[in-house]
Amino acid sequence: MILKNAFVLRNYSETPQKLDIKILNGKIEKIKKKIEEKNDEVVDLDNKLIIPGLVNTHTHAAMSVFRGVAEDLSFDTWFFKVIDPLESKLNEEIVYWTTLVSLMEMASNGIVAFCDMYMFEDVVAKAVADFGMKAVLTRGLVDIDGNGNGRLKETFKLLEKWHGFENRIYIGLGPHAPYTCSIDYLTEIAKISKDNDILVTMHLFENSWEKEKFNLKEILKTGIANNQLLAVHCVHIDDNDINLLFDYNVFISNNPSSNLKLGNGIAPITKMLSKGLNISFGTDGAASNNSLNVLFEARLSTLLQKKDNPENMKIEDVIKMLTTNGYKALKINGGEIKEGNYADFTILDLDNPSFLPIENIKNHLIHSNPKIFATMVNGKFIYFDGQFPTIDKKEVYKQFTISYRKVIGIEN
Amino acid sequence: MILKNAFVLRNYSETPQKLDIKILNGKIEKIKKKIEEKNDEVVDLDNKLIIPGLVNTHTHAAMSVFRGVAEDLSFDTWFFKVIDPLESKLNEEIVYWTTLVSLMEMASNGIVAFCDMYMFEDVVAKAVADFGMKAVLTRGLVDIDGNGNGRLKETFKLLEKWHGFENRIYIGLGPHAPYTCSIDYLTEIAKISKDNDILVTMHLFENSWEKEKFNLKEILKTGIANNQLLAVHCVHIDDNDINLLFDYNVFISNNPSSNLKLGNGIAPITKMLSKGLNISFGTDGAASNNSLNVLFEARLSTLLQKKDNPENMKIEDVIKMLTTNGYKALKINGGEIKEGNYADFTILDLDNPSFLPIENIKNHLIHSNPKIFATMVNGKFIYFDGQFPTIDKKEVYKQFTISYRKVIGIEN
Repeated sequence: MILKNAFVLRNYSETPQKLDIKILNGKIEKIKKKIEEKNDEVVDLDNKLIIPGLVNTHTHAAMSVFRGVAEDLSFDTWFFKVIDPLESKLNEEIVYWTTLVSLMEMASNGIVAFCDMYMFEDVVAKAVADFGMKAVLTRGLVDIDGNGNGRLKETFKLLEKWHGFENRIYIGLGPHAPYTCSIDYLTEIAKISKDNDILVTMHLFENSWEKEKFNLKEILKTGIANNQLLAVHCVHIDDNDINLLFDYNVFISNNPSSNLKLGNGIAPITKMLSKGLNISFGTDGAASNNSLNVLFEARLSTLLQKKDNPENMKIEDVIKMLTTNGYKALKINGGEIKEGNYADFTILDLDNPSFLPIENIKNHLIHSNPKIFATMVNGKFIYFDGQFPTIDKKEVYKQFTISYRKVIGIEN
Repeated sequence: MILKNAFVLRNYSETPQKLDIKILNGKIEKIKKKIEEKNDEVVDLDNKLIIPGLVNTHTHAAMSVFRGVAEDLSFDTWFFKVIDPLESKLNEEIVYWTTLVSLMEMASNGIVAFCDMYMFEDVVAKAVADFGMKAVLTRGLVDIDGNGNGRLKETFKLLEKWHGFENRIYIGLGPHAPYTCSIDYLTEIAKISKDNDILVTMHLFENSWEKEKFNLKEILKTGIANNQLLAVHCVHIDDNDINLLFDYNVFISNNPSSNLKLGNGIAPITKMLSKGLNISFGTDGAASNNSLNVLFEARLSTLLQKKDNPENMKIEDVIKMLTTNGYKALKINGGEIKEGNYADFTILDLDNPSFLPIENIKNHLIHSNPKIFATMVNGKFIYFDGQFPTIDKKEVYKQFTISYRKVIGIEN
């Protein structure tokens, strides 16, 4: 396949230029000013901009079923009183369909890859496989209820069945949080992470009371970050914690919408950036955001940091966080449009009044209203001009509604 | 014209229901479950949601020409060093085309009406007239350079030529800010406001140094709020100021993106709301936002207030701020879909994965990713399914680019 006539932003530090891209076996075979080859399918992308695919480094995809269900509540009430009890109603079928709706939303927002933490991850993997997206999937791990081992067994099954599937699906370890995982459990998880060379992702210091109750050094000394730890939220951390996160090479997923909406606060992103930490953006689940749009998170995070100093969070840094940093956080190759990389692209429509003057396009990517035209993963379109070529949209919507009614307890 | 098969949210406090709407002479003639009348043009809006048109209560439309031009700068450097000098290059022709681009952007974001403060407002009015939008236009008033009277004369000309045009264009008075207008000048403006029954709009306490230099009571005692004052920003105000704003019945335009991006801070919206002030949303100009999307402002403002308490800024209040409050702030009729009101509508596409489950649609309006399908002003579509029926888009884009190059000094 040859993508022709588009502007291409090869990576965060360059400026877009007109380039053709030839794709073979899911990878970028050639990038040149003009590629003229017969027998190749040609996709005309005139007046479009191709950028490295956007990455969402934290979500709970199936939680789209809870979108708008628990609003205007504090974190504790939201999670312990409403969401946690409703989650007991979920099953494999429901999670399959509600995950698909989130994949549709993410694809229509230009997201090519994401990191998930939830239950029934076997059907999450099936949804990702069917839809064509790229993902690191983790079964949420908790041992305070005495079933820590059962959840680890699920992880082993996932590893065997899905890890490396079509160079798109990878399995990781998902200890839920310091307040749901014992130190012993984290130590065991750390060992499994190292033995299998897979990443660990964990909610960390999202709430102020976590910071008071738990000690970051103790958590990190379990070895949880020895292979790779993607720590999510990190709102309530001080300068010492930032130094520790750096020393242990911890990757950070910044989820500003969810942090504000649940009243948890603003993560010290500028300080972490200047320390040199790898920060990327996550949407969190649709129950606390309520939208899976990583461009929105990038813009929000940028504005929050500029509040204290408008020179914070410069455009190229933010584009890097959305692309290069996201791939590194997921421990997968990508983030740059170059020969040999997988063809993971976010394609924007330049027929957009909010993208004028076109000369300042990199600023518009973050601060204006980007319109996503298409999303490609490993050389295949998963979203194209309002359509989802890999699935039956009507059937997904129908099954989602049935699922929602079952969970909420509405008679059909 | 009859709009058929859509869901209709008649006002912020109701829930959407399936209703047909008949429009005659720009106004809502009838709203019923089923309207079957021959000889009427029918627009099928199946799977769409009609809500009262969104209002943008503060912008400088022509500033789209400066979008992305001055980034990552403090307010003082941004305004005094970059924007202000560039503004001297503007002329009537440039302002006409760059305003049109902003009208396109606003219409594609569902905005039906806005309040503008800038120069060359005669051609801004022409652009609004040609495009079909609704607006209150104010010539920015400044007297520190000795030309206060000249600008007032422009206002009188605008009043005579445009006030009331097609029940769409209204003229107001736009004293720029306490630091550019003397107390005597404000007193004169107050008198003109009363004599002509037109509103006044002014930037107020956007920066911390304004609060230190100027006294709100002294400003209000000029009579500036006696007819109607729409005060913009109000970031640096204390509890006494809030009481004063209430006593003088001042309307507030909240512009959170611009306030964060220029490092000015967060306005005390929750306090102002609980006092009972009328607050609406403004985008500010595209040079400091950089996007004219009032839904984005509503969401951002809501998240910022929830940071301190997730129970702040409940959904219905926010929808009210976007609609009813906006009309009141602009001193025009509307904000509710009922017989006799002008047909000013924002029409959303419900074929949108981020709007599932559809049962919680009012939450999705603010917290998810609304997709605008069409925008109607006084019964005429100004945006419909990606198209702008009232203008020649290609010509506007072309003339915008020529204008941009003239302003920035790029040789063609």
